Amino acid sequence: MDKFLTKDFLLNTSAAKKLYHEHAAELPIIDYHSHLPPKKIADDHQFSNITNLWLDGDHYKWRAMRIFGIDEKYITGEAGNKEKFQKWAHTVPYTMRNPLYHWSCMELKDYFSIEEPLNFNNAEAIYDLCNQQLTQPEFSAKNLLLKKKVEVVCTTDDPVDSLSYHQDIKNQDFEIKVLPTFRPDNAYSFNNPQSYNSYLDELEIASGIKIITFDDLMTALEVRIDYFDQKGCKLSDHGMERVCYKPTSKDSLERHFKTIRQGNPLDEDKQHCLRYHILLELGRMYHKRCWIQQFHLGALRNANTRKFNDLGPASGFDSIGDSNQSRLLADFLNELDKSNQLPKTILYNLNPADNAVMASMTGNFNDGSEKGKVQYGTAWWFNDQKQGMEEQINILSNMSLLSCFIGMLTDSRSFLSYPRHDYFRRILCNLIGNDVENGELPNDLDWLGTMVSNICYYNAKSYFRF
Amino acid sequence: MDKFLTKDFLLNTSAAKKLYHEHAAELPIIDYHSHLPPKKIADDHQFSNITNLWLDGDHYKWRAMRIFGIDEKYITGEAGNKEKFQKWAHTVPYTMRNPLYHWSCMELKDYFSIEEPLNFNNAEAIYDLCNQQLTQPEFSAKNLLLKKKVEVVCTTDDPVDSLSYHQDIKNQDFEIKVLPTFRPDNAYSFNNPQSYNSYLDELEIASGIKIITFDDLMTALEVRIDYFDQKGCKLSDHGMERVCYKPTSKDSLERHFKTIRQGNPLDEDKQHCLRYHILLELGRMYHKRCWIQQFHLGALRNANTRKFNDLGPASGFDSIGDSNQSRLLADFLNELDKSNQLPKTILYNLNPADNAVMASMTGNFNDGSEKGKVQYGTAWWFNDQKQGMEEQINILSNMSLLSCFIGMLTDSRSFLSYPRHDYFRRILCNLIGNDVENGELPNDLDWLGTMVSNICYYNAKSYFRF
Amino acid sequence: MDKFLTKDFLLNTSAAKKLYHEHAAELPIIDYHSHLPPKKIADDHQFSNITNLWLDGDHYKWRAMRIFGIDEKYITGEAGNKEKFQKWAHTVPYTMRNPLYHWSCMELKDYFSIEEPLNFNNAEAIYDLCNQQLTQPEFSAKNLLLKKKVEVVCTTDDPVDSLSYHQDIKNQDFEIKVLPTFRPDNAYSFNNPQSYNSYLDELEIASGIKIITFDDLMTALEVRIDYFDQKGCKLSDHGMERVCYKPTSKDSLERHFKTIRQGNPLDEDKQHCLRYHILLELGRMYHKRCWIQQFHLGALRNANTRKFNDLGPASGFDSIGDSNQSRLLADFLNELDKSNQLPKTILYNLNPADNAVMASMTGNFNDGSEKGKVQYGTAWWFNDQKQGMEEQINILSNMSLLSCFIGMLTDSRSFLSYPRHDYFRRILCNLIGNDVENGELPNDLDWLGTMVSNICYYNAKSYFRF
Repeated sequence: MDKFLTKDFLLNTSAAKKLYHEHAAELPIIDYHSHLPPKKIADDHQFSNITNLWLDGDHYKWRAMRIFGIDEKYITGEAGNKEKFQKWAHTVPYTMRNPLYHWSCMELKDYFSIEEPLNFNNAEAIYDLCNQQLTQPEFSAKNLLLKKKVEVVCTTDDPVDSLSYHQDIKNQDFEIKVLPTFRPDNAYSFNNPQSYNSYLDELEIASGIKIITFDDLMTALEVRIDYFDQKGCKLSDHGMERVCYKPTSKDSLERHFKTIRQGNPLDEDKQHCLRYHILLELGRMYHKRCWIQQFHLGALRNANTRKFNDLGPASGFDSIGDSNQSRLLADFLNELDKSNQLPKTILYNLNPADNAVMASMTGNFNDGSEKGKVQYGTAWWFNDQKQGMEEQINILSNMSLLSCFIGMLTDSRSFLSYPRHDYFRRILCNLIGNDVENGELPNDLDWLGTMVSNICYYNAKSYFRF
Repeated sequence: MDKFLTKDFLLNTSAAKKLYHEHAAELPIIDYHSHLPPKKIADDHQFSNITNLWLDGDHYKWRAMRIFGIDEKYITGEAGNKEKFQKWAHTVPYTMRNPLYHWSCMELKDYFSIEEPLNFNNAEAIYDLCNQQLTQPEFSAKNLLLKKKVEVVCTTDDPVDSLSYHQDIKNQDFEIKVLPTFRPDNAYSFNNPQSYNSYLDELEIASGIKIITFDDLMTALEVRIDYFDQKGCKLSDHGMERVCYKPTSKDSLERHFKTIRQGNPLDEDKQHCLRYHILLELGRMYHKRCWIQQFHLGALRNANTRKFNDLGPASGFDSIGDSNQSRLLADFLNELDKSNQLPKTILYNLNPADNAVMASMTGNFNDGSEKGKVQYGTAWWFNDQKQGMEEQINILSNMSLLSCFIGMLTDSRSFLSYPRHDYFRRILCNLIGNDVENGELPNDLDWLGTMVSNICYYNAKSYFRF
Repeated sequence: MDKFLTKDFLLNTSAAKKLYHEHAAELPIIDYHSHLPPKKIADDHQFSNITNLWLDGDHYKWRAMRIFGIDEKYITGEAGNKEKFQKWAHTVPYTMRNPLYHWSCMELKDYFSIEEPLNFNNAEAIYDLCNQQLTQPEFSAKNLLLKKKVEVVCTTDDPVDSLSYHQDIKNQDFEIKVLPTFRPDNAYSFNNPQSYNSYLDELEIASGIKIITFDDLMTALEVRIDYFDQKGCKLSDHGMERVCYKPTSKDSLERHFKTIRQGNPLDEDKQHCLRYHILLELGRMYHKRCWIQQFHLGALRNANTRKFNDLGPASGFDSIGDSNQSRLLADFLNELDKSNQLPKTILYNLNPADNAVMASMTGNFNDGSEKGKVQYGTAWWFNDQKQGMEEQINILSNMSLLSCFIGMLTDSRSFLSYPRHDYFRRILCNLIGNDVENGELPNDLDWLGTMVSNICYYNAKSYFRF
């Protein structure tokens, strides 16, 4: 019997099936890290075309199409929506064993009731079928979220963002909490002095603080943190190849900051000094407000200059870095912990070779003050697939406590990505079910069911206290 | 049927069951690396309380309790034995999928005949039951070892240790050989000049050598090596984030040593110079005496300063480092090999991402002079769990010869850790059994049984020649 | 039933069996990377002794024998062919779970119809049986290749090679294309100025170009590239611990080159400058000729000086490096890509901890211009075993598109290594079959069969266009 995409998809034991169906499937979703555009929620946007909803902005799909040899014209270029959809449909069968294959099948099935795997031959029919359905009210942005029992969505927002759409959504009494996340990467992206200064000019306006010194910068950021806090923000997020530990005198800091603020370039070492102290100060600010800080570590971004010049960032030309992470990250977290000002923290790594480093790192700073205070975050980006999730869950189990894990998030720009939570839940239940089947866990499904529902929902609920 | 903790625990094929029960289960144990306190053996200590025997000093359990959110008071603090046990019992079900869960279940079953998994509800009853049993003679330190057919225990000892307890034990004609291991980490721990010099003062007393120069240090260490050798020592052990290769002129060495011996700090580079030459000289001394040297590489220790100041080292605030290991380690071993003075060597790595580096490294120095001369050591610390052991066994199989492996050790401070050998044996037999079942190995269980018993016992016996 | 080495060896599901037998088993072989000696093909060499054919030059076997404790005399020493074979036979059962065990069994079965696993007891009989068969014409070098349906063999050749044997083979109208591969490692191996200059002297003769400046060197290499191109060469190959990105002024380059050309040593940093610019220029030359460039990254070679002095390179004393690869490799490839002069490229990594880094790296430079333009190469050397191949296939599946993979190669010095293609095909089909069985792929074996045959043969055919 073909078990693909049935109700027991990925559930290979009776224990797994029971755990999933009785303890996981029906739980609400707390999506504490996403890149959904709040404007589309505020507008309750109705998508007119499956290409816009499904392909536009999805650099995972773009990348796969390029590997398959599709011309850029049909990916980000001037081709029409239908042509682009057809090229994607042509690619889909060639994504077998890539998460895109499962995601595509699950999304077409869950949202559009299309069970047939998409391919070149059925592309046109499926294109039409999706577009017909998209005209219906239940396909509006808000209804797509409600359909999946989403309770909370945290978007990802720049400190200078007005958060006006978040306010609009709140004013609309939308059942789902849509909360901002403070992502200040632009405040320590020093590579291009000109764009850095333009950014600081924006930050001056947003904060009402004239930014001349390093201290001014931190004051301006704190003003914005307070603003975000008022809007319900509970999380920050930081993306970088690695965290640096680089204690520097106040004088040097001010000197480096002055250099770049006057439009001059900074060498990498000086960039690290500034970045370290900014992150340190931010950490203390987060701690004071009981925020949770997130670190997404290990991406090597914009590796292809030619394509970057054409298409800009987040276009599918990023890969996995292999910098040494452990010592500098430990020293950074320790510096915050010394004065007991380490906020709750989630560490995500992009290089799966760092899994053990990161999972064990969290234990250094779990001091008993709170369950799972420092978390090893769910499998991220390139690792957001069955094997990657299994590896993250297994290393977390072995080197920390799986039972305290706050679980899955979408990290997606798309309103159709919520089946990823279902995918995660199946994989989790399957792993635990296998353990029961193999005699590695007692066959006590009430107990294990509680663990499962904690990981899928309740741990996040009590961890974030939205 | 619930297969958890049955006699066929972890044995999923008939080949595995046969291999384990007929070729592994009944073999004696050579525990060539442990941290058991020799005093307790010399005294044939009778533990009065399960908390003292099971929780005191066990930083694995402490760490798990902290992640679960237990206050330090109940971990290392002033709470009573019973309260501490209860807090641990509360934590146990939340350690599912962590090795602590299996270890706890196996230890309660093997030593105390308690089959019910420990939890908050049965904590008090089990506490009492254990404590009653602990009053019996068969629960004395020596009898706990004898119960598990331990033949040899190697403890871990500082060069300045008098080894008087080892002598006491020998004088008692104890059936089990309890031998010291030479662990001179303090002789090259240069971070704190004051404590380094205090240590050298102790070493002066122990060796009778006045330590003014680098050569004096090496002479003093050689005196202690000879002393250990007389007491039956056959192994050394060295723990560090990484081995360095740092050839330095004699003059510079003496100058650096003088600097720190006079109480002044040494920068990291100079520390590496001294450490490299100390290890090089030690290696030659070991070779001369046919000792085996062990390297435990890749730990990032004492990462949490606040907790270190409260609780000291080995309290559960260590994690996994990710330094580059291969080139420097190869050059170090090569330097000893150039003059054919490389002793038998065991390499253990903490970062599982280094598994292939280490397993393949051993082949560079296996010159045919002795079976398995340079060994890839068993899964260590954070890797001492089912997946970690499977990965170590698999990489060793693929990149070297599993058949020549000297197998398991406890590396534990606790008298209750010997079921870890049983755990290892089951995992080994299960892997091989799976291969037979999948047709990856011929179904020749006599041959494979010989391989199994070699790995579990006979290889270590002929390798160490205790 | 013992499934070892049956026709369904390694095929654990009915889907796997169907995929293998109907879509993979009978396909021809394109062996686009090997180390076969072209002279032996040109001579259609008839081996007189199984030891010469099977053990001579096979540093995988040598290494295993040393680990097992066999004296060098019986490995590379003065012992006779029969003694050497016996010692290897003694070792074979102790290679269980190492790829050598499977390879040995498959090679004896496939070529010599010997089904009994080799061991100490049957060594003499099998020795004689093999040697008898070796006298038959079907055991000539050419017939050994034809037996396995090899269509193309790419050898590995130095730029100074005359390629006369390749010409001889071509003149013989041999059914199999035997093509050279341009491997210019000697042109940027700067460690020993004396041997470097001897090499350049040879290159002067081969190219007819007097090499005084850096530009001369590049001109000489281009002359040889054109020569190789005329002989049907389509690939280059480069082995190094890591690719460096080291932009350097023309003046400095010329100065560094002059330094070494005059016999003076270069420090490591200057070596990197020269090497980077040589590789950059070579890449542009390859691109112009539509060649494919290969990079074999991460080997730590000749780690044992004592044995190197006795036996030279490629004797079994190499291991796996752990240098940081990602940033420098990305920057190097990007530099070629900036001007759209990046040739088709295959990246192989030796450290399996780099799998994700390399697999994701390829996506940075797949620009849609050609299907699978930048390839993540098949599991190499120490990773050329079941687990290593599975890991390479899985990471390629998850982080790129398995469907576009150009598949297996032998990388071998031996005429008996072609069962490795069969081994790969079984492993590939087994992975996909498992996915079908587990419901992770639809049970559509026509579609999946096409994927399999593409990976095993057709992708390489259209990628290389030999």
